[in-house]
Amino acid sequence: MSTNTSNELPLVIGVDLGGTQIRTAVLHGPNMLSRVSSLIGKDPAPERIIPHMFTTVEEALEQAGTKLNQIAGIGVATPGPMDYKTGVILAPPNLPGWERVPLRDLFIEHFHIPVFVENDAHTAGLGEYMFGAGRGCSNMVYLTISTGIGGGVIIDGKIVEGASGMAGELGHMTIDWHGERCNCGNIGCLEAIASGTGIARKANKAIRSDEGIELLTFARTLLEHSGEEELHIGAHTVALAAEAGVPLARAIIQYAAEAIGAGLVNIIHCFNPEMIILGGGVAQMGPMLMEPALHVVQERAMKAPRASVRIVQAQLGANAGLIGAGALIYYRNDIVVGGLG
Amino acid sequence: MSTNTSNELPLVIGVDLGGTQIRTAVLHGPNMLSRVSSLIGKDPAPERIIPHMFTTVEEALEQAGTKLNQIAGIGVATPGPMDYKTGVILAPPNLPGWERVPLRDLFIEHFHIPVFVENDAHTAGLGEYMFGAGRGCSNMVYLTISTGIGGGVIIDGKIVEGASGMAGELGHMTIDWHGERCNCGNIGCLEAIASGTGIARKANKAIRSDEGIELLTFARTLLEHSGEEELHIGAHTVALAAEAGVPLARAIIQYAAEAIGAGLVNIIHCFNPEMIILGGGVAQMGPMLMEPALHVVQERAMKAPRASVRIVQAQLGANAGLIGAGALIYYRNDIVVGGLG
Repeated sequence: MSTNTSNELPLVIGVDLGGTQIRTAVLHGPNMLSRVSSLIGKDPAPERIIPHMFTTVEEALEQAGTKLNQIAGIGVATPGPMDYKTGVILAPPNLPGWERVPLRDLFIEHFHIPVFVENDAHTAGLGEYMFGAGRGCSNMVYLTISTGIGGGVIIDGKIVEGASGMAGELGHMTIDWHGERCNCGNIGCLEAIASGTGIARKANKAIRSDEGIELLTFARTLLEHSGEEELHIGAHTVALAAEAGVPLARAIIQYAAEAIGAGLVNIIHCFNPEMIILGGGVAQMGPMLMEPALHVVQERAMKAPRASVRIVQAQLGANAGLIGAGALIYYRNDIVVGGLG
Repeated sequence: MSTNTSNELPLVIGVDLGGTQIRTAVLHGPNMLSRVSSLIGKDPAPERIIPHMFTTVEEALEQAGTKLNQIAGIGVATPGPMDYKTGVILAPPNLPGWERVPLRDLFIEHFHIPVFVENDAHTAGLGEYMFGAGRGCSNMVYLTISTGIGGGVIIDGKIVEGASGMAGELGHMTIDWHGERCNCGNIGCLEAIASGTGIARKANKAIRSDEGIELLTFARTLLEHSGEEELHIGAHTVALAAEAGVPLARAIIQYAAEAIGAGLVNIIHCFNPEMIILGGGVAQMGPMLMEPALHVVQERAMKAPRASVRIVQAQLGANAGLIGAGALIYYRNDIVVGGLG
């Protein structure tokens, strides 16, 4: 499939089921004809969320002024673990109450059009590959550094799924085998050190032990000017403090950046990709994060695969997963035709 | 290509260029009609080694009673980095004096039959995939744990080459990002900790610092009974001492085994393979090594990809690279036909 023939691309719907919201769009390639986002609320039970997802699809259709019979299919991005072949959601830690939910079949029963379900990091990688920074680059790794760290690997233009759709769990590479335990159960994962959650945990630990008085003062001043009600020291607060020169915050960001560098070295040595695309909120911290990370790559990665990789920022931002969800219909087009034609 | 139709497979030649010897065979699938091995000696200069390789090919043909015109092609396995597309050897650390050597073209000029050149860990993975433990398993990772640690990754039945043929450098995954420097320049590589070289280095360091008196005594006793002239404490000596109950040796093997476990976790999380095949001399230490390694996998790897992977021993032993080199001709068959037909 060529991305140059977007006029011939059919309309599709993308649905991105995140931990806090559902985002749904009618898409023509990467172009959003409509976009609905809706908060999940406190109860993520599937019997509540799935009808809620259906409603966002209907709203997105209405907003775009399109009818369901103009849509070639619906692509749904969900947290893993899930089975992309059957569209059954197994038991994602981010979706309590979901266990072996046949999401694809439920969508098909409701809408009677082709539906594909895929791991959200994989759809984001697919989105960047088909319509973002990775266009024309058939061996690439998408790394999202956000609340968690995930990956979508494309080799020879195909999503690397693995035996059970779990390939590319790049946040759960061990880089510190005698380090701290990660939420996933493993020790010393990149995610435990360098994700937004990891950065925030380190900052809050320092504050509890009185090392972080200057950071706490900074956060309080921020709170006074923000109009928010609760003091919350997340990765974004740490980044702002680091930019303002708070030494502890700078050290925390530097540490996370160097861990990301080690993770990039591992990606380069495992996959030898042409391109690594960095997405997610943490990756947008700019030079403060990227310079130390790229310095580690320069110092540590083997020369030949380092010389052949470009490390770039994602182009689709927070919409990568959503655009990639819609792009699933293009990607699996021959399967759709074969399976339902 | 099916491995069940081996009667129809043409004869091929495999050449495996290692750090100390050249091994060459006339092959019918995995079956060796002849096998020549020849030491490289102290000077690995390409102008010496390449004619030497040609001679082994001629000897292997003679031993097998075959003529060159009965052979479909020659597959050559070499250390990386090398360019599998052009068959140019770049500058392998294990082959001093080699720099941008057009090995494939030199072979073609000499023999006038199709020739393919490939990274030796990739050919070993291909050998196990086509004719060994990986038969029928199209998503697998071959991990060789020997003097060094290397990998050959097969996804959807294809060798994962990467942008410059360097994918699968699994020994150079960082698992200890604040650890010791590896020969490759990176910090805390799996290879630095768990390879034969890493195990031997740790033992010899302990001996120099007097912690290793019991191990040294064991090695001396071994020397007395072996008839060899020089005391050499390599990974094999450490393994024998560990089996004999020398505490330091047991601790060194345990440490290496746990590092291998962390490496396996990373492979599982990156590739989610159906199978991981362990080859190389160190991997043959048996339960002393495998039990702690698999315990780490059990404790640390995510449940879904852990449930879908089988971790098994290689079946082709030291011949995996050689059989895989010959198998390159089968693997690249359509390219051979297209390129030279």
